[in-house]
Amino acid sequence: MHIHGKYFHTIWLNKQNHHIVEIIDQRYLPFKIKIKKLKSPEDAYEAIKKMLVRGAPLIGVTASFGMYLALLENRKSRHPAEKMHEAASRLKSARPTAVNLAFAVDQQLKAIEHGESIEEKINLAKDTALKLKSTEEQSCKKIGENGLPFIREISEKKNGEPVNILTHCNAGWLACIDYGTATAPIYLAHKEGIPVNVWVDETRPRNQGARLTAFEMSEEGVSHAIITDNAGGLLMQQGKVDMVIVGSDRTTANGDVANKIGTYLKALAAKDNNVPFYVALPLSSIDMNIESGINEIPIEQRSEKEVTHIEGLNKNKIKSIRLTPEKSRAVNYGFDITPAKYVNKLITEKGVCNPDKQEIKKLFSS
Amino acid sequence: MHIHGKYFHTIWLNKQNHHIVEIIDQRYLPFKIKIKKLKSPEDAYEAIKKMLVRGAPLIGVTASFGMYLALLENRKSRHPAEKMHEAASRLKSARPTAVNLAFAVDQQLKAIEHGESIEEKINLAKDTALKLKSTEEQSCKKIGENGLPFIREISEKKNGEPVNILTHCNAGWLACIDYGTATAPIYLAHKEGIPVNVWVDETRPRNQGARLTAFEMSEEGVSHAIITDNAGGLLMQQGKVDMVIVGSDRTTANGDVANKIGTYLKALAAKDNNVPFYVALPLSSIDMNIESGINEIPIEQRSEKEVTHIEGLNKNKIKSIRLTPEKSRAVNYGFDITPAKYVNKLITEKGVCNPDKQEIKKLFSS
Repeated sequence: MHIHGKYFHTIWLNKQNHHIVEIIDQRYLPFKIKIKKLKSPEDAYEAIKKMLVRGAPLIGVTASFGMYLALLENRKSRHPAEKMHEAASRLKSARPTAVNLAFAVDQQLKAIEHGESIEEKINLAKDTALKLKSTEEQSCKKIGENGLPFIREISEKKNGEPVNILTHCNAGWLACIDYGTATAPIYLAHKEGIPVNVWVDETRPRNQGARLTAFEMSEEGVSHAIITDNAGGLLMQQGKVDMVIVGSDRTTANGDVANKIGTYLKALAAKDNNVPFYVALPLSSIDMNIESGINEIPIEQRSEKEVTHIEGLNKNKIKSIRLTPEKSRAVNYGFDITPAKYVNKLITEKGVCNPDKQEIKKLFSS
Repeated sequence: MHIHGKYFHTIWLNKQNHHIVEIIDQRYLPFKIKIKKLKSPEDAYEAIKKMLVRGAPLIGVTASFGMYLALLENRKSRHPAEKMHEAASRLKSARPTAVNLAFAVDQQLKAIEHGESIEEKINLAKDTALKLKSTEEQSCKKIGENGLPFIREISEKKNGEPVNILTHCNAGWLACIDYGTATAPIYLAHKEGIPVNVWVDETRPRNQGARLTAFEMSEEGVSHAIITDNAGGLLMQQGKVDMVIVGSDRTTANGDVANKIGTYLKALAAKDNNVPFYVALPLSSIDMNIESGINEIPIEQRSEKEVTHIEGLNKNKIKSIRLTPEKSRAVNYGFDITPAKYVNKLITEKGVCNPDKQEIKKLFSS
């Protein structure tokens, strides 16, 4: 999608030097557009760990490129297989919740087994990363096509009034490669001329909604307003939300959805106000090995500083300020679980289904 | 309660000059302790409007003192009655949601009717304001006594483990005169040696939780942790919340509760996780003239700047930073409605009741 009118992906190979991977350093958005070069697997690890990149699909692709960089780094090692397993463990440890991360790393380990020479392995790793990138991009586009009818259907009943869509966090193109997951149907609707208005949850503590989703919408010219995470319930009570669409970091075989903390509260409010609640996700973020979200998905606990301090712009400089009394501590969890019973539909690249084990299985084999 | 070990109320008459009212300017807390002098009804209006004072009980008392200041200002007016009605309208217009505001102003209009001379009227107004202040203070203490058994009961089942109490916004002594409403049972439990831990919702956009409730807890030595407004649902899913207590800006005859935006979402999560949800409030914030919270309570819409910008401390100076993309707008509502069906008990100064019209009526006549 666009930044200042120019088409961007979130990750790409440097044009001159294919041993360098480039990303948008999302920590500075929307205030500054900075491109960061990744030259080693440790750079990729840091980019994931420190959230220069975030969002399950992009984390997966970055890890995949990280494995490619690891192979480049270890091309002269005496024990390349051992080194690659070390790199794999380290990359997997960067963030605990997203299943795409482990998937992408394991996919690389398998892919490079098929190469005989180190050069062959390197080419295989590069192709695997590029293919994963392209797969994620295509998935997002298909998610958009599969989600679009839900927006169109509401629009047809609204006589030209905009369809009000609430979203939480950033499941936009910045979390993916292009289009996004939750945002893909919105972008396609906008492109088709369907009037939409997006309620963007700011998404504390890291404000991915206020900083990234709002930025995306703004750059694409989609009507939107930022709201606090507290506001969605009232807007639904007042009939100002027609649907909710969110992404997912990990979804269980039963359709329990782990997503950015606060998602669950919106799902409860949607249920209470008869607002449909959709989760848009690539099949790669569904973990068929687990069933209960609350019991089996590890929830990342992050630094309390993300709660006690916040970054923003003051006189054109990015500043961090303290929000809380000096002696108060904070507790900071990254995700919560929306039980399947609060999810109306899962929207995937392979089609739409109910959050139900049999239906999810069918999509995988379709 | 205490600030730096010294006992404070939130509003008082200047000791030397009873024509001056003093308040803590809460906009600077927890970063700076500033006392502000109110010398005119316009000062009182501004203090309410610009949220130097906030919280339904304190707003009411400030308005009451505002009427006293209006009488002082108009003591030589040819049409004092007219002037007082003007002052009343203006004070009432400062904030639309809290019923205490209109109550306090009307109470003063009635009180001063009983005075014959202007000096008599002034004395009556002063007494009325002081009495309202003392009533609110006593109410809070009684709310504490009436809520304490709920904490004690949970504690008895926890073998010395702390009782985890989640609260939203600031319904603490800073919102009242002393003790607070939602916090009063917590302070009494703490005083009694019952181990408690308070989850303090930061309460965007104005962060009254992170700034004020956390500050109160910190100054009183009560164990607490600040969490984002998004986090309460997960904590309940994980069994880390034993009860929720919040205050109320206005409650209907049927027990629908208007409180700081986001309260409703916590009530939904409490219901979903079998966590008891209590509302602590003086009877003065119950409006027996209305029944449906969603249809009849006006919801204040506030400046979008409260969402797009935030204040905090940077190098010991209070700075405001912008959080959002320049071209994105924001929408900012102050309150939401928690329907009575999600409220376990109302805790008032006259006793505890179910959120039910007949039971509420009984409390009024008890």
